[in-house]
Amino acid sequence: MKIVALAGGVGGAKLADGLALILQPGELTVVVNTGDDFEHYGLKISPDLDTVCYTLAGISNPATGWGREGESWRVLAELEKLGGETWFRLGDLDLATHLERTLRLKKGDLLTEITRDFCRKWGIRHTILPMSDDTVSTIVITENEQLSFQEYFVHRHFQPVVKSFVFEHIQDAKPADGVLEAIGNADMVVICPSNPWVSIDPIVSLPGVREVLKNVPVVAVSPIIGGTAVKGPAAKMFQELGIVPSAFSVAEHYKDFLDGFVIDEIDAKMEEFIQAMGIRTLVTQTLMKNRNDREQLASEIMAYFIDRLVRRIC
Amino acid sequence: MKIVALAGGVGGAKLADGLALILQPGELTVVVNTGDDFEHYGLKISPDLDTVCYTLAGISNPATGWGREGESWRVLAELEKLGGETWFRLGDLDLATHLERTLRLKKGDLLTEITRDFCRKWGIRHTILPMSDDTVSTIVITENEQLSFQEYFVHRHFQPVVKSFVFEHIQDAKPADGVLEAIGNADMVVICPSNPWVSIDPIVSLPGVREVLKNVPVVAVSPIIGGTAVKGPAAKMFQELGIVPSAFSVAEHYKDFLDGFVIDEIDAKMEEFIQAMGIRTLVTQTLMKNRNDREQLASEIMAYFIDRLVRRIC
Repeated sequence: MKIVALAGGVGGAKLADGLALILQPGELTVVVNTGDDFEHYGLKISPDLDTVCYTLAGISNPATGWGREGESWRVLAELEKLGGETWFRLGDLDLATHLERTLRLKKGDLLTEITRDFCRKWGIRHTILPMSDDTVSTIVITENEQLSFQEYFVHRHFQPVVKSFVFEHIQDAKPADGVLEAIGNADMVVICPSNPWVSIDPIVSLPGVREVLKNVPVVAVSPIIGGTAVKGPAAKMFQELGIVPSAFSVAEHYKDFLDGFVIDEIDAKMEEFIQAMGIRTLVTQTLMKNRNDREQLASEIMAYFIDRLVRRIC
Repeated sequence: MKIVALAGGVGGAKLADGLALILQPGELTVVVNTGDDFEHYGLKISPDLDTVCYTLAGISNPATGWGREGESWRVLAELEKLGGETWFRLGDLDLATHLERTLRLKKGDLLTEITRDFCRKWGIRHTILPMSDDTVSTIVITENEQLSFQEYFVHRHFQPVVKSFVFEHIQDAKPADGVLEAIGNADMVVICPSNPWVSIDPIVSLPGVREVLKNVPVVAVSPIIGGTAVKGPAAKMFQELGIVPSAFSVAEHYKDFLDGFVIDEIDAKMEEFIQAMGIRTLVTQTLMKNRNDREQLASEIMAYFIDRLVRRIC
C-alpha cells in the first residue's frame, strides 16, 4: 500500500499522524507545504514542516498543536528584555531545529535532506518531504497591503481582510525530489484537513502536481466543519473571497482532481450535492481531539476508500 | 577625568570592570576588540564585546569569566541531539544577545548603536564601543593552516603552533565613531591585561589608532605574570613566536606608545629593564580573583599614574 498525504500545519499534521499510526514504514509519504516558510532573526523557519515532524515524532505540544512538548522560553524572555521582536514564539527546543536547519542550508544541504536526517533523529519511520527545495513564498493580498504569510497569520492574527493569494516564485519552483514520483505511484492521495488556500494550494500549484493528482485516487478531508474552521482562518478566507464557507465549497475547490471526500456528520446534508459532482463521500466524525481520534479517522478513510476507489481503479 | 580602556575578553573585562566601579558615568570609555567576531549558525557573535558588557553589567558567569550567570543550555542540548555543531557553547541567554544583534545588523543598524542600546538595557552607565563597525577578522597563521580565531581558540583549544596573525580587512576598516575622539581626549588610556597579539593588536592596528595613542598617556597592565598567562594562549603565543613570555616582552611589544606599565610583584625583578625603555612602572598584585581585586587594581593604577603621567603632561 502506497499512501501520500498532503498537509499543512496543525490540522493536517493530526491526520498525517493518524495515517502514520496505522501504516507500515515505507507505506506513507507526507508532502508538506513550505509556502509559509520564512526567515526570522536570520533563521530559516519551516512552520508546517516542523509541526508535521514534531507531531509524527510524538514530541509536539498537545495543547497548541504546534511547537514542542515541554518547551521552555529562556531565549525569548531574554529577547524581550533586549527589546526584540517576540511576535513569533521561538521556543528553546524549537530554536535548535531552526539553528541546525539554517546552518545546513547555508552549507548547501537541501531542505529535503535535512528533513530526512531530522526525521531519523526523531525516530519517524515514514517519509516526510517538503513540497519543494526551492523557495516559494505565500503572499496574502489584503484590502490594504501585501503581507508575507507569517506576518498575516501570526503577527496580525489573520485579521486583515483577504482578497487573494500569490505563491511567489512558484512557476520556477520544482517539486522536491520524490514528490511527483510518490504521488504518481500512490494507491491513494489523502488531502489532510488543512487550509485549502494557503496550505494545500501551494503544493497543488507546483509545476506538475495538479496533473499527476488527476491520475491517482485523491481523497480530501474537509477542514470546514459546520461552516467554521477547527482552527485558523480557512472559513474566514472563504467568506472574504465571497464563497460560503462549507464542506461543499472545499469539495468544489478541489473538484478538478477529487475522487473522494470526507465530511463531518454535522454536514451530512451536503452529501448529495458533493456526490452530484461525481465525488464519493464518507460521512463520519472528523474532529480529532486526541491521538485515538486521528487513528480512527485514518482507519475509516483507508477502509472506506480503498474498496471504492483503489480496487475500482486497479 | 577621561579614561579609555582597551580590552579583549575575560582578563580585559575584569580590569575594565574595576575602572567602571571607581569612575563616574561619562568618565570611562571601553574600546573592545572585535577581531574575534564571527558568524556561527548564521548569528553574528562578538565574544569580547559580550564578555565586557556582561561583566560590567554584573551578569557574567563568575566561574568562567565569559557567558552569563544563571545560564542554561536547552538549545545547545537539543542541537546536540540533532547532530549540530556544539564546540562553541551557545547558552540560552547568550543566544538572545546574538539573535537580537543579528536581526538589528541585518536591518542596517551599526554594532556601535546596538551595543549602546544593549548597554542601556543592561544598566551599564559607562560607554562601551566596539573597536570598529567594519568587519575585521583575526586569522591565526599556524604551522599547517590558516584558522579563523574562534576555530583556533575554541574549537582547537589553541593547540596549533602559531606563526603569525593577520587582521583581515583592517587597512579598509575605520575605528568606530567615537574611538579616535575618546582616545585623543583621554587623560589616560589603560591597556587592560588582554592578549597583546589577538586582543589589543587588532585595536591598535586600526588606521589612526597607533598615532593617536602616541599623543596621550598610555598605561598597560601585563597579562603575563611569572612567565605565564592568567588565562588563554598569550604566553604560548610569545613562545611560539620565539619571544620569552614575560612582562618585559609585553612592555617591549607596546613600547612605541607606552608611558606606564603595571607588573605583578612576582615580576619585580624586571622593573629596572622596563624603566630602561623610558617606561614608568607600578609593581603590585595584579591577579584579579574577585570584584574587590578589580577595584583595588584600578584604584592603584589611577592613583599612581595620574600623578606621574597625567599631571606631568597637563
